[in-house]
Amino acid sequence: ISFYLHDLFFPTPGVNVTTAIVLPGTNNATMFGMVAIIDDKLTEGPSIDSKLVGRAKGILAFDSISNISLLASITLELEGRDGNINLLGQNRALDPQREISIVGGSGEFRFVQGFATLRTHSRE
Amino acid sequence: ISFYLHDLFFPTPGVNVTTAIVLPGTNNATMFGMVAIIDDKLTEGPSIDSKLVGRAKGILAFDSISNISLLASITLELEGRDGNINLLGQNRALDPQREISIVGGSGEFRFVQGFATLRTHSRE
Amino acid sequence: ISFYLHDLFFPTPGVNVTTAIVLPGTNNATMFGMVAIIDDKLTEGPSIDSKLVGRAKGILAFDSISNISLLASITLELEGRDGNINLLGQNRALDPQREISIVGGSGEFRFVQGFATLRTHSRE
Repeated sequence: ISFYLHDLFFPTPGVNVTTAIVLPGTNNATMFGMVAIIDDKLTEGPSIDSKLVGRAKGILAFDSISNISLLASITLELEGRDGNINLLGQNRALDPQREISIVGGSGEFRFVQGFATLRTHSRE
Repeated sequence: ISFYLHDLFFPTPGVNVTTAIVLPGTNNATMFGMVAIIDDKLTEGPSIDSKLVGRAKGILAFDSISNISLLASITLELEGRDGNINLLGQNRALDPQREISIVGGSGEFRFVQGFATLRTHSRE
Repeated sequence: ISFYLHDLFFPTPGVNVTTAIVLPGTNNATMFGMVAIIDDKLTEGPSIDSKLVGRAKGILAFDSISNISLLASITLELEGRDGNINLLGQNRALDPQREISIVGGSGEFRFVQGFATLRTHSRE
């Protein structure tokens, strides 16, 4: 399964607000302590206007004092599929590629294990 | 294992306060962004006064902009049993039935995997 | 793998700040509702000045109204190793020994399962 995740941390106010920054953090450089709740679009292509294939929902916590890294405790729901894929892992946002553990699932995804590989397509 | 979980989001002030709403959320309709810490009773029957069989402790985060859904990162402790069952999953609160992954455990529950099935008995 | 984790909840201001208390909690006795983000040192010996072997990063939530217990949703990174070990579990801080589930990993630690055993060496 492959898709593009659109995490708009600083969206145009009132438009496409799929990220709520619920805690501001204490460190300007790495945003240590910042916590966000997301309900982000997953799309087939890199454009946010391409076909919606699902959503990623959950918590992101900036938990590094030395780089930009997020503890992601999130679930994926995919269009046309029943159930969720549940993920927990560290997302070092500036690394070209990283992995987040799949720790379980529900519905069609019961007993899934493994990992999701993330690459950053673009950053704005 | 079957039990009733009593999640009292809006309890009588000062009575049975087992839920701390630690962040208020940004969306009135779906409470997107709201975060609660719980230490909820698990009972044998539907009444909160029936026999206590354990507690559910952890974090609930409202993470949907389109419905009422909570990322649950919680652990269960059961009376007379040693250890915890650890859960991570999405709880679409208005669905009649849903599943949350069991991602691990401790003590008697080491290496558990699977899922918990939730049904809503009543809502106040 | 064995190491010492240094969680300095109340550090000297400006020195060794590896814990951000992002939410204060609602219960003075057990700190119910308190949430912290950590980026703690893991060292080879009990002294914080002993050899750094890694870091523990993530979220701690005080989720008990009856004792001092923390839901730990954290990842470990170890010096010289590629990837993370992802943990979710309940840490009853005053118990002499407790276990937190290993729910997954990345890099060298893909597909890890099991548990981490914690003992408290000292408390200040």
